[in-house]
Amino acid sequence: MQLNGTEVVMRGNANNEPWVKKPPLVSWVRASLSNSSKIRVRQLFEKVSSTFTYILWCPITMDAIIVDPVDCCVDRDIKLITELKLNVVYGVNTHAHADHITGTGILKSKISNMKSVISLASGAKADETVENFDQICFGNSYVTVVNTPGHTSGCVCLVSSDEAFVLSGDTLLIRGCGRTDFQEGSSAVLFDSVRNKLFCNLADDVVVYPAHNYGGHLCSTIAEEKEYNPRLGLGKTVEEFTAIMEGLNLSHPKMIDVAVPANLNCGFQDA
Amino acid sequence: MQLNGTEVVMRGNANNEPWVKKPPLVSWVRASLSNSSKIRVRQLFEKVSSTFTYILWCPITMDAIIVDPVDCCVDRDIKLITELKLNVVYGVNTHAHADHITGTGILKSKISNMKSVISLASGAKADETVENFDQICFGNSYVTVVNTPGHTSGCVCLVSSDEAFVLSGDTLLIRGCGRTDFQEGSSAVLFDSVRNKLFCNLADDVVVYPAHNYGGHLCSTIAEEKEYNPRLGLGKTVEEFTAIMEGLNLSHPKMIDVAVPANLNCGFQDA
Repeated sequence: MQLNGTEVVMRGNANNEPWVKKPPLVSWVRASLSNSSKIRVRQLFEKVSSTFTYILWCPITMDAIIVDPVDCCVDRDIKLITELKLNVVYGVNTHAHADHITGTGILKSKISNMKSVISLASGAKADETVENFDQICFGNSYVTVVNTPGHTSGCVCLVSSDEAFVLSGDTLLIRGCGRTDFQEGSSAVLFDSVRNKLFCNLADDVVVYPAHNYGGHLCSTIAEEKEYNPRLGLGKTVEEFTAIMEGLNLSHPKMIDVAVPANLNCGFQDA
Repeated sequence: MQLNGTEVVMRGNANNEPWVKKPPLVSWVRASLSNSSKIRVRQLFEKVSSTFTYILWCPITMDAIIVDPVDCCVDRDIKLITELKLNVVYGVNTHAHADHITGTGILKSKISNMKSVISLASGAKADETVENFDQICFGNSYVTVVNTPGHTSGCVCLVSSDEAFVLSGDTLLIRGCGRTDFQEGSSAVLFDSVRNKLFCNLADDVVVYPAHNYGGHLCSTIAEEKEYNPRLGLGKTVEEFTAIMEGLNLSHPKMIDVAVPANLNCGFQDA
């Protein structure tokens, strides 16, 4: 396969083949995949921390990735992965979470050949680290990594290869965003990530799948967040956003002292 | 528009136009809508009763319906409806719920011209009652009503006009089904509804959007439920299903004595 003159190796998990590709500026080209080869996504919910886990797969090869799994839901996730006959090649975290422990470590112990993935900027340990515009491949599908620091310095968003959706982590939530008052958080940096990376580069109809929602919303779109996000919508300035974030007075996350150390070692903790 | 020789009036809410159409056997014809006019769906979740509410709309006219709204989530739903600039013409209940109070009554008081809809077989009061194969229209889109008794005698499923998905109510849940031990429930009847109506008539890739899930699953497909539903999958007989349902020993629903009387009057209770 050729994209803009760069050869793209489509299988990410075979021996001696590069799993991360660094093509020049192809990341934002809208792919014209046929419907039958369209990337598949299944959203799952964990009630206690209100976390969404995503399983993405290529319907041709059934290779898959799981994004932001939660430790207490691993049995559920494994059951679904088995039923869907998926070959999960990567367990990816959008960042080192502070409110729950990732399921990546347990999943690795149960799925042979699955590797853990997190951003290099996170400073966390994993089998593979990714950088801006890297592509994480599974079968004929991939997600493009977009560095979106601000909630943490290592946060990324993952754009689907058909650009139908973005897994927005804690960077962009539905009518909200991740807090910026710990883990090297920065309101100015988060504002730049959302406004100048996501809003400027993704089409209005791109579906936003966040890492959390606390009010029963499951997805949104770029257009909705541009218009209605009360913190980061197009009407807001960086000064207004910073003032909003400083005024939140959030309590210390209950799980942070347990979760962050565990998640900084996300591929390797004991099951 | 002509479908199999039957004229279909596409707007359901205009004066003097029939909102329920009774075309001969067109209900199961797969529509060939272009992507831009594809029916839109937004799934929402209520944590206490683990209920899903669905907002469906036509992207051309922005006419919409809301299915299985919950009373405590009406403010959230109204906000989203307003933001999406939707004209909600019907509030539909898939049956008279026993575990929560419908939001239809409150929604009617806040959305002018919205009408409540429920099946004739439910015995509940509403502005409009629907029967098997009726089409509930909103703009250029519609859902087809399929009577699927068993959990209650008035249960229906709603098949989207592009047959991409079915709102399966409490008839077919993800790897489960609604209980059959009250509200005129019948295991034999539910078995017939799922196996001979849903599984026989819907394609394997049709997405199943249920009214509830308690384990963090949000959707499924007909293929998955045929293969993996532990009660109603293709490997099970009606005798096995009946024995499973009789062995559940479920407790009396906490809300039933409040919810059912209210929901039998779903379009008219005080806000």
